[in-house]
Amino acid sequence: MRTVRVELGDRAYPIHIGEGLLVDSGGELLAAKGVLAGKSRALIVTNETVGPIYEARVVDALESAGVKQVDVVRLPDGEQYKTVRDLERVWDAAIEGRHGRDTTFVALGGGVVGDMCGFAASAYQRGVSFVQVPTSLMACVDSSVGGKTGVNRPGGKNMVGAFHQPTAVIVDTAALDTLPLRELASGIPEIVKYGLIRDAGLFEWLETGGGVEGILARDKAALAFAVQASCENKAAVVAADEREGGVRATLNLGHTFGHAIETSEGYGEWLHGEAVSAGTVMAAEMSCRLGWIDRALVDRTVKLFERAGTPVAPPRGMTAATFRDLMAVDKKVQDGKLRLVLLKGELGGCVVTGDFDPRVLDETLEFFCGK
Amino acid sequence: MRTVRVELGDRAYPIHIGEGLLVDSGGELLAAKGVLAGKSRALIVTNETVGPIYEARVVDALESAGVKQVDVVRLPDGEQYKTVRDLERVWDAAIEGRHGRDTTFVALGGGVVGDMCGFAASAYQRGVSFVQVPTSLMACVDSSVGGKTGVNRPGGKNMVGAFHQPTAVIVDTAALDTLPLRELASGIPEIVKYGLIRDAGLFEWLETGGGVEGILARDKAALAFAVQASCENKAAVVAADEREGGVRATLNLGHTFGHAIETSEGYGEWLHGEAVSAGTVMAAEMSCRLGWIDRALVDRTVKLFERAGTPVAPPRGMTAATFRDLMAVDKKVQDGKLRLVLLKGELGGCVVTGDFDPRVLDETLEFFCGK
Repeated sequence: MRTVRVELGDRAYPIHIGEGLLVDSGGELLAAKGVLAGKSRALIVTNETVGPIYEARVVDALESAGVKQVDVVRLPDGEQYKTVRDLERVWDAAIEGRHGRDTTFVALGGGVVGDMCGFAASAYQRGVSFVQVPTSLMACVDSSVGGKTGVNRPGGKNMVGAFHQPTAVIVDTAALDTLPLRELASGIPEIVKYGLIRDAGLFEWLETGGGVEGILARDKAALAFAVQASCENKAAVVAADEREGGVRATLNLGHTFGHAIETSEGYGEWLHGEAVSAGTVMAAEMSCRLGWIDRALVDRTVKLFERAGTPVAPPRGMTAATFRDLMAVDKKVQDGKLRLVLLKGELGGCVVTGDFDPRVLDETLEFFCGK
Repeated sequence: MRTVRVELGDRAYPIHIGEGLLVDSGGELLAAKGVLAGKSRALIVTNETVGPIYEARVVDALESAGVKQVDVVRLPDGEQYKTVRDLERVWDAAIEGRHGRDTTFVALGGGVVGDMCGFAASAYQRGVSFVQVPTSLMACVDSSVGGKTGVNRPGGKNMVGAFHQPTAVIVDTAALDTLPLRELASGIPEIVKYGLIRDAGLFEWLETGGGVEGILARDKAALAFAVQASCENKAAVVAADEREGGVRATLNLGHTFGHAIETSEGYGEWLHGEAVSAGTVMAAEMSCRLGWIDRALVDRTVKLFERAGTPVAPPRGMTAATFRDLMAVDKKVQDGKLRLVLLKGELGGCVVTGDFDPRVLDETLEFFCGK
C-alpha cells in the first residue's frame, strides 16, 4: 500500500492506494486507519451498478470497525442523475436512519457518486464527515481528491456544491477490474491533464507502450503508477490553493470547453472524461493558434487521446454560438470576462488567463464547429 | 446608527442597526460601507410579501453603489416554502443572469428568506458572498446573525444547510413598521432566550413596561435597544463557537421542543418563534422538575410570553410519543443520545447536557401532552 497525503492543516487527509484494499481487506484497512473509530452510524452512498458488487464488503468493513448501524442508499447510475432531486434521497435516508452530526457518509462509486455524497455530507445537518472509496479511474485519479463536490443544473455543470474535504480516500485498484472499458478509458484524459499542466514526466510515461495501453489492459503496475502520480499532482495543487483562488484553476484544463459539451449534449450522453478529452484538444489548439505552444504538442496530445479512444473534437452539430453561451456561466468568469486554462511554453507549462485575443477563441470554435 | 461587530477573524462582519437605513438611505449606507464596491452583479432574494414594499429601494441602493446588474428573485412567503425546491429557483435565477463567483446575494426578508438565501449563496458555484437585510423582528434579533443557513426536510427542521457567514447585516428598524403584529410578537421569544441563557439584565428589561409592550407598540427606542442587545449576545456567542462545538448550542434553548412542534404541525402553521415560545416553557418546566431552577423563574418566563401573546404550551393533540420521535433527529444528538439546553441556577445560567434523568423528560412531556 502506498499513501499520499493531502496537506491541508486541520483538514489534511491520507489517500491510501493499493491492490485489494477494498476487495480483500477493506475492513481491516478502515479499522486500522481509525477513520471510523468510535462512529456509531455510517451511511454508504453508492449506485445501482456498483452497489451490488461492492457494498456488502464495505458494510462488513464498517461493522468490523465497530460501526453499530450501517445504512445504504443506492442512487441511479449516470451523470444525468447528478441532481438536487437525487441528493434529497441521500438526506432523507440519513434522517430516516436517525443519523446525527457524528455520522460518516461513505462514497462508494465513481465521480458522480463521490461528488453527490460529498455535497450531501457537507450540507446534512450543516456538515458531517465523509470518506471517498472511488471505483472508477476518473474518481481514483481526480474527483475523489480535493473536496470539490456538487451537482449539475440544467443551465450548467457543477453549478451547486461545496468545498468539503473527505477524511480519507481509499483507492483499491482491483475495483477497476469490473469497470467497463469506455469508463476506464474516460479516466485517461485527466491523467494527460496533469502531464500537460505540470508533470512532463507523467505525460512522457503515458506516451510509452506501458502507459496508455498499460492502463487500458488494466496492468496492475501501470494503474498503481498512474493513480499515485495523479494523486500526488492533485494533492500538491490542492494543498497550495484549496478554494481555487489561483493555481487550482489549472486543474480545469479543457473543462470549460468540456462542461459546455456535457451541458449541451445532455448530462450522461458524453462521459465527463470524454468531454474533457475533446475540450483539452480545443484548449491545446487555441494555445497553439495564440502562438503559445508548438504544433507538435497539440499533435502529441491528440495522439494520446486517439490511443485511449477518447474524442478529439466536439460533437457534430454543436455550434460555436452554443459554446460561447454555455461557457459564459463558467465558474472562472470574473466580472463578466471569460478566463481559460491554456498551455504556454514547454510541455508542463500553462496559464489561467482572460488576457487573450477573443478572435482566436472564435477562430478555434469555428475550426472545430464550422461557422 | 449603531454597529455591532461579529469577531470571526477573516470572516468578521458588521451589523449596522439604525432607523431608516434601508427606507431612507439604503443606497448611501451600502455604498459607504463598501460592501458591494466593485461588484458587477447582485441577486436580491426576497419574497412576495416583502419584495413589493422594499425591493425597489434595495435595487436603487445597489445601483447607486455601482453594481451594474441587479436581478431579483421573489420566493413564496412562509416556512412551508423553505424547501430545496424553492432553493433551486434561486440557483437558476443566478445562472440565468450569468452570475459568477464575484456576485453577491442579498437576503431581503425574514428568517426564511435569510436562511434560504444564505444556503443558496454558500452552494452557488461552491460559494459566493451574501448580505443580510432582515425585515422581521425574528431575523433582526437572531437568524440574520451567525451564518446558520438551510432549509427544512419533511423529516426535520433545518436538516440541510451550511455555516456561511454574511459579509454584512443591515438592520433598519423602520422596516418593522410594516410587519404584521403576530410576526412581530413571534420575535420576542428569541429575545427572552438571550435573557434566560446569559443576560439577566435583558430579561429584566423585557419585564418592565417599556420592554415587551414597548416592542409590541413598535417604540423606536425599545426596538433599537432589543435588537442591539440581542445582536451583542448573539455575536459574542457565535464569535466564541462558530460551528456549534460547544456554547453556541445554548442559543437553541427551547428549539429542540420547538422544532418538533413545527415539524409535527406542518411548517408554516406555527411561526418559528411561536414554537420556540412553547418549547422554552417546556425546557424551563423540565429544568424546574430536575430541581435545577426555581419555580419562580418558570412563572416569570410564562408571564413574559403571555404578555407577548405567544404560546406557553404545545399544540393540542400533539403527543409525548410524537415529541420523542421528532426530537430524536435533533442536531444536538450525539451517539444516539439526546442532549438538551436546560436552565440551571440563577437567571442567566444554562447547560447543554444529555446527563439528566430521562424519566423527567417523560414526565415533562406528559405534563404538557397527557399520557
